[in-house]
Amino acid sequence: YPGAYGASPAANDPMWGYFTAIAGQDGEVDADELQRCLTQSGFSGNYTPFSLDTCRIMIAMLDRDYTGKMGFNEFKELFAALNGWKQNFMMFDHDRSGTVEPHEMNQAINAMGYRVSPNALNIIIKRYSKGGRICFDDYVACCVKLRSLTDHFKRRDTMQQGTATFQYDDFIQCAMSI
Amino acid sequence: YPGAYGASPAANDPMWGYFTAIAGQDGEVDADELQRCLTQSGFSGNYTPFSLDTCRIMIAMLDRDYTGKMGFNEFKELFAALNGWKQNFMMFDHDRSGTVEPHEMNQAINAMGYRVSPNALNIIIKRYSKGGRICFDDYVACCVKLRSLTDHFKRRDTMQQGTATFQYDDFIQCAMSI
Ligand SMILES: [Ca+2]
Ligand SMILES: [Ca+2]
Ligand SMILES: [Ca+2]
Repeated sequence: YPGAYGASPAANDPMWGYFTAIAGQDGEVDADELQRCLTQSGFSGNYTPFSLDTCRIMIAMLDRDYTGKMGFNEFKELFAALNGWKQNFMMFDHDRSGTVEPHEMNQAINAMGYRVSPNALNIIIKRYSKGGRICFDDYVACCVKLRSLTDHFKRRDTMQQGTATFQYDDFIQCAMSI
Repeated sequence: YPGAYGASPAANDPMWGYFTAIAGQDGEVDADELQRCLTQSGFSGNYTPFSLDTCRIMIAMLDRDYTGKMGFNEFKELFAALNGWKQNFMMFDHDRSGTVEPHEMNQAINAMGYRVSPNALNIIIKRYSKGGRICFDDYVACCVKLRSLTDHFKRRDTMQQGTATFQYDDFIQCAMSI
């Protein structure tokens, strides 16, 4: 059909031009390019901008071939996830302080569908808060890790009993990648 | 015996005065205080200074009661570990570039006694390098995580067969804490 000969299927996607501009010569988006793109697009709004570290773990979450870069489909998947987390963050930042407080974090994690114990919640809050508050950048880093670790776990919890067995090297790969 | 009455055993330790000055009123060291102390003491030398994120995971590694702060014994334990990692880093930064390159990282991880597959090594390098090089701050973050995850794993590998079974919540606690 007209115009489609030789073109990649993605070329008809409205985000394709945006992606190729960000990706540059190598056609993939690395952590620096992602950080620049999120900063320039004003994605964080009045919230804390994304640190390079959070950009790296966002890519690691989707980077199934471990190249440290994202292709077009991963890029779209990331934006969908990011939009969800941003809406979630805004919903639970009741007082519009730009940060989520510990009791709000509890609600946010539940709303995302994760069931964690009070102990686990306490550990998460200690790790991702500064002065008892969780800013947007750390919130996203936390969401990325929770999603990624839960995915890894579920894939190994073949009986769906909430229990999984890991070889040492596999455990290190799962937990060190993000 | 003279002078010891009523004093805590730590008071005779040469590091005690230093610790109490850093810890302030609450008598414990949090991530901000640790970052300030490491910066002011010039610990990193010509290497990249420690990010707040790395300071947080250093504390998380030792913070067994999950208060987000370190007492005196943890503080001393951390300095011992840090000195070891710094020596290790200097040893493997053969060309004195201030960074460790991927093939040097392989040697460094082996020298610390960890046995990981080429896949795991590749994942670690992707996660902790910038432009194919690993700076001191990220190197320490990587060492902290490897040590902490390996400790968690070993404690659950009761048969010492290189295999451990985790409940979901326990897995999340181990991997989200650092
Ligand atoms: Ca690129
Ligand atoms: Ca303190
Ligand atoms: Ca080097």
